[in-house]
Amino acid sequence: MISALVYRDDGASAYEETALDAARDADGTTWVRATTGEEFDRVAEAFGIHSLSVEDVRNDARPKTEEYDEYTFVLVRMATLRAGEQVFEEEVQTRPVGLCFGDDWLVTLTRRELEPINYVWNAIEREEPRMLRFGPDYVGYRVIDRIVDEYFGLLDEVGGEIELIEDSIFEGPDPEVLEGLNAVRRDLLSFRKTVWPTREAVGVLARGDPDYVREATEKYYRDVYDHLVELVDLTETYRDLARGARDIYLNTLSQSTNEVMKTLTVVATIILPLTLVVGIYGMNFDPGASAFNMPELGWAYGYPATMLGMALVSGVLLVYFRREHWL
Amino acid sequence: MISALVYRDDGASAYEETALDAARDADGTTWVRATTGEEFDRVAEAFGIHSLSVEDVRNDARPKTEEYDEYTFVLVRMATLRAGEQVFEEEVQTRPVGLCFGDDWLVTLTRRELEPINYVWNAIEREEPRMLRFGPDYVGYRVIDRIVDEYFGLLDEVGGEIELIEDSIFEGPDPEVLEGLNAVRRDLLSFRKTVWPTREAVGVLARGDPDYVREATEKYYRDVYDHLVELVDLTETYRDLARGARDIYLNTLSQSTNEVMKTLTVVATIILPLTLVVGIYGMNFDPGASAFNMPELGWAYGYPATMLGMALVSGVLLVYFRREHWL
Amino acid sequence: MISALVYRDDGASAYEETALDAARDADGTTWVRATTGEEFDRVAEAFGIHSLSVEDVRNDARPKTEEYDEYTFVLVRMATLRAGEQVFEEEVQTRPVGLCFGDDWLVTLTRRELEPINYVWNAIEREEPRMLRFGPDYVGYRVIDRIVDEYFGLLDEVGGEIELIEDSIFEGPDPEVLEGLNAVRRDLLSFRKTVWPTREAVGVLARGDPDYVREATEKYYRDVYDHLVELVDLTETYRDLARGARDIYLNTLSQSTNEVMKTLTVVATIILPLTLVVGIYGMNFDPGASAFNMPELGWAYGYPATMLGMALVSGVLLVYFRREHWL
Amino acid sequence: MISALVYRDDGASAYEETALDAARDADGTTWVRATTGEEFDRVAEAFGIHSLSVEDVRNDARPKTEEYDEYTFVLVRMATLRAGEQVFEEEVQTRPVGLCFGDDWLVTLTRRELEPINYVWNAIEREEPRMLRFGPDYVGYRVIDRIVDEYFGLLDEVGGEIELIEDSIFEGPDPEVLEGLNAVRRDLLSFRKTVWPTREAVGVLARGDPDYVREATEKYYRDVYDHLVELVDLTETYRDLARGARDIYLNTLSQSTNEVMKTLTVVATIILPLTLVVGIYGMNFDPGASAFNMPELGWAYGYPATMLGMALVSGVLLVYFRREHWL
Amino acid sequence: MISALVYRDDGASAYEETALDAARDADGTTWVRATTGEEFDRVAEAFGIHSLSVEDVRNDARPKTEEYDEYTFVLVRMATLRAGEQVFEEEVQTRPVGLCFGDDWLVTLTRRELEPINYVWNAIEREEPRMLRFGPDYVGYRVIDRIVDEYFGLLDEVGGEIELIEDSIFEGPDPEVLEGLNAVRRDLLSFRKTVWPTREAVGVLARGDPDYVREATEKYYRDVYDHLVELVDLTETYRDLARGARDIYLNTLSQSTNEVMKTLTVVATIILPLTLVVGIYGMNFDPGASAFNMPELGWAYGYPATMLGMALVSGVLLVYFRREHWL
Ligand SMILES: [Mg+2]
Ligand SMILES: [Mg+2]
Ligand SMILES: [Mg+2]
Ligand SMILES: [Mg+2]
Ligand SMILES: [Mg+2]
Ligand SMILES: [Mg+2]
Ligand SMILES: [Mg+2]
Ligand SMILES: [Mg+2]
Ligand SMILES: [Mg+2]
Ligand SMILES: [Mg+2]
Ligand SMILES: [Mg+2]
Ligand SMILES: [Mg+2]
Ligand SMILES: [Mg+2]
Ligand SMILES: [Mg+2]
Ligand SMILES: [Mg+2]
Ligand SMILES: [Mg+2]
Ligand SMILES: [Mg+2]
Ligand SMILES: [Mg+2]
Ligand SMILES: [Mg+2]
Ligand SMILES: [Mg+2]
Ligand SMILES: [Mg+2]
Ligand SMILES: [Mg+2]
Ligand SMILES: [Mg+2]
Ligand SMILES: [Mg+2]
Ligand SMILES: [Mg+2]
Ligand SMILES: [Mg+2]
Ligand SMILES: [Mg+2]
Ligand SMILES: [Mg+2]
Ligand SMILES: [Mg+2]
Ligand SMILES: [Mg+2]
Ligand SMILES: [Mg+2]
Repeated sequence: MISALVYRDDGASAYEETALDAARDADGTTWVRATTGEEFDRVAEAFGIHSLSVEDVRNDARPKTEEYDEYTFVLVRMATLRAGEQVFEEEVQTRPVGLCFGDDWLVTLTRRELEPINYVWNAIEREEPRMLRFGPDYVGYRVIDRIVDEYFGLLDEVGGEIELIEDSIFEGPDPEVLEGLNAVRRDLLSFRKTVWPTREAVGVLARGDPDYVREATEKYYRDVYDHLVELVDLTETYRDLARGARDIYLNTLSQSTNEVMKTLTVVATIILPLTLVVGIYGMNFDPGASAFNMPELGWAYGYPATMLGMALVSGVLLVYFRREHWL
Repeated sequence: MISALVYRDDGASAYEETALDAARDADGTTWVRATTGEEFDRVAEAFGIHSLSVEDVRNDARPKTEEYDEYTFVLVRMATLRAGEQVFEEEVQTRPVGLCFGDDWLVTLTRRELEPINYVWNAIEREEPRMLRFGPDYVGYRVIDRIVDEYFGLLDEVGGEIELIEDSIFEGPDPEVLEGLNAVRRDLLSFRKTVWPTREAVGVLARGDPDYVREATEKYYRDVYDHLVELVDLTETYRDLARGARDIYLNTLSQSTNEVMKTLTVVATIILPLTLVVGIYGMNFDPGASAFNMPELGWAYGYPATMLGMALVSGVLLVYFRREHWL
Repeated sequence: MISALVYRDDGASAYEETALDAARDADGTTWVRATTGEEFDRVAEAFGIHSLSVEDVRNDARPKTEEYDEYTFVLVRMATLRAGEQVFEEEVQTRPVGLCFGDDWLVTLTRRELEPINYVWNAIEREEPRMLRFGPDYVGYRVIDRIVDEYFGLLDEVGGEIELIEDSIFEGPDPEVLEGLNAVRRDLLSFRKTVWPTREAVGVLARGDPDYVREATEKYYRDVYDHLVELVDLTETYRDLARGARDIYLNTLSQSTNEVMKTLTVVATIILPLTLVVGIYGMNFDPGASAFNMPELGWAYGYPATMLGMALVSGVLLVYFRREHWL
Repeated sequence: MISALVYRDDGASAYEETALDAARDADGTTWVRATTGEEFDRVAEAFGIHSLSVEDVRNDARPKTEEYDEYTFVLVRMATLRAGEQVFEEEVQTRPVGLCFGDDWLVTLTRRELEPINYVWNAIEREEPRMLRFGPDYVGYRVIDRIVDEYFGLLDEVGGEIELIEDSIFEGPDPEVLEGLNAVRRDLLSFRKTVWPTREAVGVLARGDPDYVREATEKYYRDVYDHLVELVDLTETYRDLARGARDIYLNTLSQSTNEVMKTLTVVATIILPLTLVVGIYGMNFDPGASAFNMPELGWAYGYPATMLGMALVSGVLLVYFRREHWL
Repeated sequence: MISALVYRDDGASAYEETALDAARDADGTTWVRATTGEEFDRVAEAFGIHSLSVEDVRNDARPKTEEYDEYTFVLVRMATLRAGEQVFEEEVQTRPVGLCFGDDWLVTLTRRELEPINYVWNAIEREEPRMLRFGPDYVGYRVIDRIVDEYFGLLDEVGGEIELIEDSIFEGPDPEVLEGLNAVRRDLLSFRKTVWPTREAVGVLARGDPDYVREATEKYYRDVYDHLVELVDLTETYRDLARGARDIYLNTLSQSTNEVMKTLTVVATIILPLTLVVGIYGMNFDPGASAFNMPELGWAYGYPATMLGMALVSGVLLVYFRREHWL
C-alpha cells in the first residue's frame, strides 16, 4: 500500500493512497513511499519520475546520485548479514532504496517495507519538531544516515569474526579456518561493492551540486560522507587483517609440517643406527671357523657392553637434538 | 549484402543495396548496415566515413568513441564464450561492432551478421513506436545496450565456474583445479580488456560531449554506463574470488602433505623402536659364555613379557598421537 | 573544568569558567578549552559551534578540516602506544582533539586533559613573546605540531620492534616472530588510519583555503604538512620492511624443513643399506644343505671383511653427501 | 653520411650532404636524416636544434615529446628482441629515434641507419602521392607508426614463449621453466619501460597541443595512440599470464613433493610392520626354557600362517591406500 | 667557513666571510655557501632566509620546492652507498642540500662540504664562460644535475648486486641470498624515499612556476626532471627484479626439498622390501617341526636364488625410478 504524508512546521497529516495528487499539491512537504513494483509505476506517473530511475530500483542497480530536471534521484542500499548454513557462513545481503527529492516532495521506492524508512516516517508522524522544520532533502539525509549507521554494526560483526578466527588459529591448523577467512573475504568484497559507490553518491550530495539539496543540508550529507569514508577505510583494514590471519594460518601449517619432520628425523636418527648394531650381532658368522668371526658374541660382557653403548649413543643424540631445539 | 532502412515517426521502409544515395537523402533517419570488408568501403564512400574508422573495425581495435566532423564513431565489442576442448576450457571471443552516428543517419559495420544488430533492426522494421520516435543516437544506444546486457550472462557463467571449482576443491587436491582456475583467470583478463575501454567509450557518450548525441539520449547512455561500471566491479570481484579459491586449493595441498607426513611419522615412531627391541633379542651373544649374555632368552616369561611390553609401548604412543590429533 | 585564557601582545590573563561570555568579548585572543562532554555543550553554545563538530569529537570521527561560517573546525588525533599483555603486543591508541578557530578565538575540545594542549597553554600563561604575537590559527598550529611530532616517536618504536624481530629471526624459526610481525602490521594499519586523513586535513590548512587561517600562518602548516607526508612515507616503508621480515622468516622455516629432510635422508641412505647387509648374514639358510648356502659365514675373514665393506660404503656416502652440502 | 630530401606535391629531389642550407631553404618540405653523433651537431646547427635534444638521442633518454620555439621534438625507441645465449633467453633491445618537426622541415636523429626511417624515406623517393601531399608531421607519424607496429610482433613473440612455457609445465617440474618465466618477466619489464612513456609522448601529439602538429594530422596520431594503449594493456595481460604460469609451476612442484611423500609413506606403512613381525620370529628366546617362549616356532603351520597373515595385512593396506587415492 | 663568490659576464671574485653584506650588494650574481649550523644563521640573517628553510636543512626534511616572497627554496639530497659490515650490506646514506635562489643571489646550505657544490663552485672560480653567462637558477640547476647524475651510479651498483645474487642462486639454496635480497630491497626503499619527492620538487622548477626560475632555465630543469622520472622507473624495475630473484630462490629451495625427498623415497622403496625378505629368512621357525616351516632354508640354491631375486627387484625399481626422473 502506498502511504503519503504531508508535513509543515505546524504538524503532519497522512493522505489516502488514492489521493496522491491531493497530497502532492497540498501545502508543505509531501513524502510518498511505494513498496511494490506496481506502486512504483503509479507514483512515478503522479510525480513525473523517469522510468530509468524506477528500473534502477527494480534491477538492483549500483548506488548513485543522478539529477533529473524535476528531481534528484539517489539510490542507496540497505545491508544486512544473513546467517548462512555453516559457522562463519553469513552473507551480506543488500536491498535497494530509491529516493527522489523534488522541490517540496520526496518519493521513496523500496521493494518491501524497510526499517530505516519506517523509522524516519514515524518520527514525522510523531511530529518531532526537528523533522518538521526541514524539507525533503533533510528527510533523505535521515534515511541515508540510518542506513549508513547500520553498516558499522555489520562491519563490527565481520571484525568479530576475524578475531574469532585469529584466536582459533593458535589451537592448531584446522582447514575450517581458511574457509572461514574466505567467507569473511567474500563478505568484505560484497560490502565494498556497496560502500564504494555509496560514498561517491553521497559525496555528490555533500558537495551540494544537485539542485534539490539546500545549502543548509549540505553539512549533514558531509557528515554521512565522513562516515562512508571511514567505512571504506575500515573495509580495507579488515581485508588487510584477514590477509594477515591467512598468513599466520599458512605458517602454522608449515610450522606443523616442520615439527612433524623433526620428530620423524629424530626417531629415525636414533633408532636406525641402533637397529644396525643389533643386526650386526644377529649375523650368523661362524665363530668356530676363525677367531676373527664375531668373537664379541663369546665375550663375557659382550651383551651388557653393547646395550650400554647403545644407551650412550641414544643419550648423546637426545641431548644434541634437544640443544638444537628439535625436541 | 548491404541493407538500408529509412524510418520516420510514421513508419519504416527498406531500400535496395544499390540505392544507398537515395536512402541517405530520404526524409527520416537512415540506417545502413554493412557486414563484409568490401561493403565497408562502399558505405564509407557514400557517407564520408574516414578510412581510420573502417580500419578500426577491420583490425579489431579497442572499444572507443571518436569524433569526426560529420559523425561520431563508436566501436564496441560483442562477447561470447566459446566452449573449449577441456572442461573449464572456454575462451572469451569478441567481435568488433562499429557504429557511425551522423546527423540523421547511422552506419553499422560488423564483420558478419550479429544478433544485437538484427534484433534492433527488426524492432524498427516492425515499426515499434518507441523506436521510430528517436534518432540514430537512440538506435545506437539500443544496440550497445543489448551487447552490454549479454556481458552479464557471460560473467554469470564465469561465476558459475568459480563456484564449481570451489566445490571441487574440498574433494581433495586435484591438479585440474588449478588449470581450471587459470582458465577462469584468463577469461577474466580477456573480458576486462573489453569492458574497461567500453566503459570509457560509453562514458564519453553519457557525458554528452559528442555532437551527434542529443541531450535527450544522454540519460540512456548513462544507464548503460552504470551497467559497465558494475561489470568492471564484478570482473574485479571474480578475480578476487578466483584468487581466494587458488589460496584454498594450495592450502588443501599443504594440508594433505602435512597429513601424509604425520601418518609416516606415526608409523615410523611406533614400529621402529619395536623393531629395535626384536632386533636385540635376535642377537647371537652366547648365553653360555657368561651369565651376563642375554639371560632374558632363557627366562620362562621372556617372550610373553617382551611382547606385552611392546604392546604397551605401542598403546601409549597411539593414545599420545591421537591426543595430539596426529591420527 | 572549563578554562579560559585571553592574551594580547602585552600579556595573558585567565578567566573563570563562569565568565565565558566575558572572555569571549574581551579584547585579544580568547582560548577556551573544554575536556568533558558536558562542557562541550556549554562552550558550543557560547561560541556558536555546530552540534556536528561537537559530535565528531564525541564519536571519534576521522581527522578532518571543515569550514563553518563562524569558524574553521579541525579534528586531529593524539596517538600513543599502549603496552599490551604480551611481548610485541602494543596497540596504537588515539584520542580526538577538536580545534575551532574563530576570528579572534579558539576552542579546543578533548575528552580528557591532554599533554599537547597543556603544553601550549602553559607557554601562553608564561607569556612567551612568540606565542602572544600571533592569533588563534598559530596556537592551533602549535598544538597540531606537538601532536604530529609525537607521531615520529611512535613510529620509531615500531621501527625498533621490526629491527628486534629481524634480529630474532636468525636465531631459528619461532612462531612468536610471526605473531610479533602481525602485531606490528596491525599497529601500522591503525597508525595509517590516523596519519592519512590528518595529512589531508592539514593540507587544507597549508593551502590556506580556510578563512580563519591567516596568510602568515600558512607556511607553518606547510611545515607540519611536510612532516605528515614524511610520516605517511615512513609508514609505508615500515610496512614494506615488515613484509620483508615475514618473507625471511617463512624462508627460514622452509630452510629448516629442508635441512631436517636432508638429515633424515642422509641417515636413512647410509644406515638402511647396511641394515640390509647385516640382515643378509642373519638369514638362516643351512650351509650344510649345499656349498651355495651362505658359504661366507664359514670363511675365516667373513666377519671383518663385511664390517670393513660396510665402513667403506658409509665413508664413501659421507664424503659424497658432504660434497653435495647435505651435511 | 647526412642525406637530405626535399619534396612537394609534384615530386621529390635529393640534396648533397654539403648543401644543407640550400635544402633547408628550398621550396617544399625538407627532411634531413643524421645517423652519427658527428652529423647530429652539423644538422643541429643548420636547423637550430637545441643541444638538449641532441643529448637526449645520444644518451638514450626516455621517449617524450618536448616543444621548443622552432620545432617539436619527439623521441621514440625502436625495439627488437636480441636472441640470448640460452633457450628463452632473449633481451629487448631498444634504439633511440629523435624527430624534430619544424614548420616545413623534419630532422631525424638516429645512432645508426634504422629500417623504419629508410622505409618511409624510400616511399617519398618513389614519390608516392600520399606521402607528398602532407607535411613533416605526417612523415613523423609514418615513422612512429612503423616503429609501433613492430612492437606488436615483439609482444607476439613474448606471448608465444609464455605459451611454450605453459605447455612444458605439464611435463613435470623442471627448474628451467622458472628461469624462462623470469626471462619473460624481464622482457616485459624492459618493454613496459619503453611503451609507457611512448604512449604519453604520442598522446601529446594526438591531443594536438604542439604547434607543429597540424589539425589534419592529429587523427593519425590518435590512431597510433590507440595502438600504444593496446600495447600497454597487452603488456599487463602478459605479465598476468606469466604470473599465472609461475603459480601453476610452483603448484606442480608441491604436487610432486606430495606424491613423493605419499609413495614413501605407503611403502613404509606396509613394509615396516611386516619387518617387525619377521623380526619377532627372528628372536632367540629359548623355547626349551618354558612353553611360553615362542611356541609358534615349533608349530607345524607357523611359517605359512605367518606369511599368509603378512600377505593379508599388505593386501588390506594396499586396498585402503588405493581408496584414499594415495596410490 | 662561509665562502662568498660574486660573478658577472666578465669574471668572478671571492669575498671574505666577514663581507657578506658587501657580497650581497655587489654588482653581479652572489653565491654564498654555508656548511655548519652556526653559519646557517648568519647567512639566513644577511639574506632574509626564513627559519623554516634553515630548519629543513638541519632536520633532514624531505626534498621539496617552496616559494617565499624573496626567494625560492629547494631542498635536494645527495646520496651515497655506505659499505656495511657484511657482503651485500650497504646502506643508502643521504645528506640534505638546501638551495635558496633569490633575484640575483644564491645561498647553499649543507651540513658539511659536499662534492657537487665544490665542483660547480670551482667551475665559476675558473671563470668558465658558460657558467658566468647565467644567473643563480642556472647554478642551482648545475648543482642539482650533478647530484642527480650520481643517483644513476648508485642504482647501477644496486643493479650489479641483484645480478650477483641472481648468479649465486643457481649455485644452491644459501640463506645469505635472501639476506642479500632483503638488503637490496631496503636500499631501494631508501632510495625511492629520496627520488620520489625530488622528482616532484624538480617538476615544480621544470614547469617554471617559481618566480626565481627564469624561462630560459626551465628547459634545463626539464632535462633533470626527465632523469628523475627515469630513476623512479629504474627503481621500480629493480624492485621487480629483486622480487623475481626471490621467487627463483624460494623455488630453488622447494626444488631442493623435492629432490631430497625423492632420494629418500627411492632408497626406502628399494631397501625396505629387501630388508623384509632377509628378515623372513632370519626367522627361527623350526624346519624340523614340519615340512611347511621354511623349507627354503634347506634348499641347495635357496641362498643364491634369494640374492638373485633381490637383485632383480632392485634392478627393476631402479629402472622405473630413472624413467620417472626420480634419479
Ligand atoms: Mg539503470
Ligand atoms: Mg561471514
Ligand atoms: Mg550518522
Ligand atoms: Mg585478537
Ligand atoms: Mg567504483
Ligand atoms: Mg572515489
Ligand atoms: Mg585504428
Ligand atoms: Mg572458462
Ligand atoms: Mg540494459
Ligand atoms: Mg560456493
Ligand atoms: Mg584502460
Ligand atoms: Mg576510467
Ligand atoms: Mg560527524
Ligand atoms: Mg607493537
Ligand atoms: Mg614539527
Ligand atoms: Mg637490522
Ligand atoms: Mg584518504
Ligand atoms: Mg592525498
Ligand atoms: Mg635529456
Ligand atoms: Mg625472452
Ligand atoms: Mg599502425
Ligand atoms: Mg596455452
Ligand atoms: Mg610513466
Ligand atoms: Mg597516462
Ligand atoms: Mg606466496
Ligand atoms: Mg620543515
Ligand atoms: Mg646493498
Ligand atoms: Mg644530467
Ligand atoms: Mg643476470
Ligand atoms: Mg610523493
Ligand atoms: Mg608525480
